[in-house]
Amino acid sequence: MRIFVTGAAGFIGSTLTDRLLGVGHSVVGYDNFSTGREKFLTHALTNPGFSIVRGDICDERALAKAMSGCDLVIHLAANADVRFGLAHPRRDLELNTIATMNVLEAMRTNGIRRIAMASSGSVYGEPSIFPTPESAPFPVQTSLYAASKVAAEGFLQAYCEGFGFQGYVFRFVSILGERYTHGHVIDFFKQLSVHPEYLEVLGNGKQRKSYLYVQDCIDAILLCLEQPGKINIYNLGTDEYCEVDESIGWISETLSVSPERRYAGGERGWIGDSPFILLDCSRIRSLGWRPKLSIREAVVRTVKFIDQNRWCVEDGH
Amino acid sequence: MRIFVTGAAGFIGSTLTDRLLGVGHSVVGYDNFSTGREKFLTHALTNPGFSIVRGDICDERALAKAMSGCDLVIHLAANADVRFGLAHPRRDLELNTIATMNVLEAMRTNGIRRIAMASSGSVYGEPSIFPTPESAPFPVQTSLYAASKVAAEGFLQAYCEGFGFQGYVFRFVSILGERYTHGHVIDFFKQLSVHPEYLEVLGNGKQRKSYLYVQDCIDAILLCLEQPGKINIYNLGTDEYCEVDESIGWISETLSVSPERRYAGGERGWIGDSPFILLDCSRIRSLGWRPKLSIREAVVRTVKFIDQNRWCVEDGH
Repeated sequence: MRIFVTGAAGFIGSTLTDRLLGVGHSVVGYDNFSTGREKFLTHALTNPGFSIVRGDICDERALAKAMSGCDLVIHLAANADVRFGLAHPRRDLELNTIATMNVLEAMRTNGIRRIAMASSGSVYGEPSIFPTPESAPFPVQTSLYAASKVAAEGFLQAYCEGFGFQGYVFRFVSILGERYTHGHVIDFFKQLSVHPEYLEVLGNGKQRKSYLYVQDCIDAILLCLEQPGKINIYNLGTDEYCEVDESIGWISETLSVSPERRYAGGERGWIGDSPFILLDCSRIRSLGWRPKLSIREAVVRTVKFIDQNRWCVEDGH
Repeated sequence: MRIFVTGAAGFIGSTLTDRLLGVGHSVVGYDNFSTGREKFLTHALTNPGFSIVRGDICDERALAKAMSGCDLVIHLAANADVRFGLAHPRRDLELNTIATMNVLEAMRTNGIRRIAMASSGSVYGEPSIFPTPESAPFPVQTSLYAASKVAAEGFLQAYCEGFGFQGYVFRFVSILGERYTHGHVIDFFKQLSVHPEYLEVLGNGKQRKSYLYVQDCIDAILLCLEQPGKINIYNLGTDEYCEVDESIGWISETLSVSPERRYAGGERGWIGDSPFILLDCSRIRSLGWRPKLSIREAVVRTVKFIDQNRWCVEDGH
């Protein structure tokens, strides 16, 4: 199969691309390299079945040109910077919602009708049910990021109904592993590189979060893509969660440091942060999938990767 | 209070404007007159507390300028043409989602923090629960219109969380009454004016729909606006539904015609049409509101209005 991957130079995108190439698919990657890294594509570029197009998801014509001849679109490119949404109120709308519409329209232009997209567990807002199933009560959005993802999901679904598309929506928890480029592990790693004796922590350290190892995430995506339904919505996470404080313990232990913890206080790390994320993943588990790594193992592996690939942490790549 | 009403020259907007002026508020109306009618503002324009700005909701700067000095925004302007979404796939995104973001940003520019918006019962897609409550399971969207409204709701909610806005979201069934300008009653009226002997009906006539009389709808909005919560979401409908066939009967009887019914067939009137809409309105009823008119009375009143105001049916107004 010829697969078009947006965000192909990113953390999840490049890892997925390697996996797809490994099982014999050809891949057309699309990335503007705003957060994607050329180094992540080193292996993919040795494969004749891979090509990369430097382009922006805000550019529908470039998208349409690049995806010509593909059979399936896996749309991962997005603004994933949840925390600073309020500083740039239109960014999530533009990069997540309107951009997804660009992808859908580019597909329609090309007669491509299968799409998978990365959504987020944050679309459940602050849910009343834990673990939170895909059929949780109609949520109230608490961040622009999550609002933009719900919006993108809705337009994708409308294309499935209206234009006969087949759609896959993945509501991820935070993903960890090799090529990890943003999130709390990097934030803490950076701080501890500069001042190993203390660590500034957003919130009170009691936020409960769920994480999933990137290869487990990709196993799940590949399995779901075999399902025949018109609209397939899956939570992707582990059946466990950890407190931020536990994660700090694992990170510190791996780096052999014992920082004093300085809490900013409050239940949430920032406005719109969900203090508790735990997804009900029984739908994907019913297909036979289960994560191979625990959250602790995923955190440790991520820290070791960053420690051995410090260029990932450096600004300007 | 000084209230900014988008879509003020429309069916619901102009009726709401008259009501707001009637209880002593001042109103700044905003409309591009693409579907709004100047005649609907005849009464409002006699009130010194009313002014109308001709402008587009796609123009954030014009919005920001026009709403300066207002205390509350009631955002009714939208593309309400659900049926033809697929012919213009970006229209709902632009006129309903991006435009709502324009309204929110214009409010932020002006330091205005209270907003009410018209959403739609269609956001529940094809629900599994009837009557459908606000907390129904996380829906799958079936039309671009509904997707664009869910998206707008989400961004509004994120502004409440992130920028301290107070928000009111009204999920309407179809509204009927004086100044009605689009929907099945007009479609049937137009047909019967040309050929009273037969009527072409989308679907099989068995679609079950809920309707609400416009003055009942406005009673509900005004009551909800007294509630103090940060984010207030209300279904607005009647506790009854009717089949399209029943509505045809009432329309025919009012016009003294007996058309042969020619059904296009199928459970849905068009792709993305919900074959059954019945909202659980116990939340708004718990505030003491109840509709004064039945669906039948609302249909009959609408037919009589159209019959006496045929200019409403004419193209180009």
